[in-house]
Amino acid sequence: MKAISSSKMFGGEQKRFTHTSTTCHCNMTFSVYLPPQASQLDSNLPVLYWLSGLTCTDENFIQKSFAQKYAAEKGIVIVAPDTSPRGDDVPRDPEGAWDFGLGAGFYVNATEKPWVKHYQMYSYVVHELPSLIKANFNVSDKQGIFGHSMGGHGALMVGLNNLSSYTSISAFAPITNPMSCLWGKKAFSHYLGDDQSSWRQYDASWLITHKDVTADKQIPILVDQGEDDAFLHVQLYPERLEKACELSDWPLTFRMQPGYDHSYFFIATFMQDHIDFHAKHLLS
Amino acid sequence: MKAISSSKMFGGEQKRFTHTSTTCHCNMTFSVYLPPQASQLDSNLPVLYWLSGLTCTDENFIQKSFAQKYAAEKGIVIVAPDTSPRGDDVPRDPEGAWDFGLGAGFYVNATEKPWVKHYQMYSYVVHELPSLIKANFNVSDKQGIFGHSMGGHGALMVGLNNLSSYTSISAFAPITNPMSCLWGKKAFSHYLGDDQSSWRQYDASWLITHKDVTADKQIPILVDQGEDDAFLHVQLYPERLEKACELSDWPLTFRMQPGYDHSYFFIATFMQDHIDFHAKHLLS
Repeated sequence: MKAISSSKMFGGEQKRFTHTSTTCHCNMTFSVYLPPQASQLDSNLPVLYWLSGLTCTDENFIQKSFAQKYAAEKGIVIVAPDTSPRGDDVPRDPEGAWDFGLGAGFYVNATEKPWVKHYQMYSYVVHELPSLIKANFNVSDKQGIFGHSMGGHGALMVGLNNLSSYTSISAFAPITNPMSCLWGKKAFSHYLGDDQSSWRQYDASWLITHKDVTADKQIPILVDQGEDDAFLHVQLYPERLEKACELSDWPLTFRMQPGYDHSYFFIATFMQDHIDFHAKHLLS
Repeated sequence: MKAISSSKMFGGEQKRFTHTSTTCHCNMTFSVYLPPQASQLDSNLPVLYWLSGLTCTDENFIQKSFAQKYAAEKGIVIVAPDTSPRGDDVPRDPEGAWDFGLGAGFYVNATEKPWVKHYQMYSYVVHELPSLIKANFNVSDKQGIFGHSMGGHGALMVGLNNLSSYTSISAFAPITNPMSCLWGKKAFSHYLGDDQSSWRQYDASWLITHKDVTADKQIPILVDQGEDDAFLHVQLYPERLEKACELSDWPLTFRMQPGYDHSYFFIATFMQDHIDFHAKHLLS
């Protein structure tokens, strides 16, 4: 693990690192925000993972979300990985698409060639990265997860598949039913092949509906969605997640936010609510 | 004036516009944040001008500073112009330097060829842009000005030359004595020529020392400077501004911030203090 940069922010440290990922078989970059409380020798802080959307790296979040202000107030570490493997050896969309390949890993473990070798983002986010964080920082086992758009899908899907590893899930404008939208179909068919039964494990709405989870194992979900988001009715379909949660009595707080779009201006506006939500569960 | 984009943020609107500048003889882009209070028909809000640093456009500020949160709370309009004229017809540094030419107008009115036609940023910031804002938005005559690095120089120098037009000045890591640092010497010698007496009117430390201003005409200045800023001892020289203010009994609050660098992580950390400072003077 090699430090790339470090800047003081809100009394803590915003850091970036690279490391050689044994899961993705390439160098991966990620960011860590250490709040001021992390400088205490006996600190044992919870970790909140952020998953970014299509085309993003870890940098969009650390520069535009303003999460650090609230993480500093609460004493929470925030970790933001990249959205895909990268590097000269990593295959990309031959036509340079922005919604598939580089910057668009969709947080799945690819099974199809040529993607299978590097595009193992699910295992990277669920296993390798948390192990690396625990080995290098004084953090507790408490974890929350949140994200935006493709990363909102990632947060929901990773959280739902690992209920005992996370206290809480939240998302801004998530892709809620990737099996049924164009972005998801394109990505899943390439990464996972044409057998759609292999897609289900990565689809939040399917998981909520079909996983048989008792109330005591459920973890709370908070979703904010901008009503003027251009992707709302063509890619995101939050009503499907709402319906799934309603049918399964899953504790979802869904908020439609009038006038807001898909940008980080929207994310920054409601960031405090999301940190407060996770803090309530991470610090209890 | 043509709208390029608009996003809701903290209940208000973050907007970008282009217009044909009669001062800079090219199309200029700027951003305006309208807080929620601006939607009231009889709103008459003060305006805070932000001047950005080398290489920046208006977008760095609106994406990374988080000023909108505090502007929304206080009811202040924020306007952020670009840092230079731009376009195919606008001359640039022949070697593509980042510290001179495009993105580096230094907020002066150039007198030398080939810069004189377009590089008229002083008049643009002091006259043309405020006139445009007053003609198109319900704003009051109250104005504050702040900025970062080259834009901190701009805010100090513009404010000091127009004491009756602004209530307050603040800066993050400003170039305080451009006549004596490499960035300033390079820019001023090209834009203004070799006669250094023409440089003085654009140098905050010189202005503070040599302008004969009675106490009732002085306006307060707040400056934050990161102690780990790589440019501190080679370009910025805040001790010269401090000394000038001390000699002239100018009301300066100077804060050295241990551990902080030159980035927007530093700016975002102390943004609330700067908005509070201006609000105290703009809203009184």
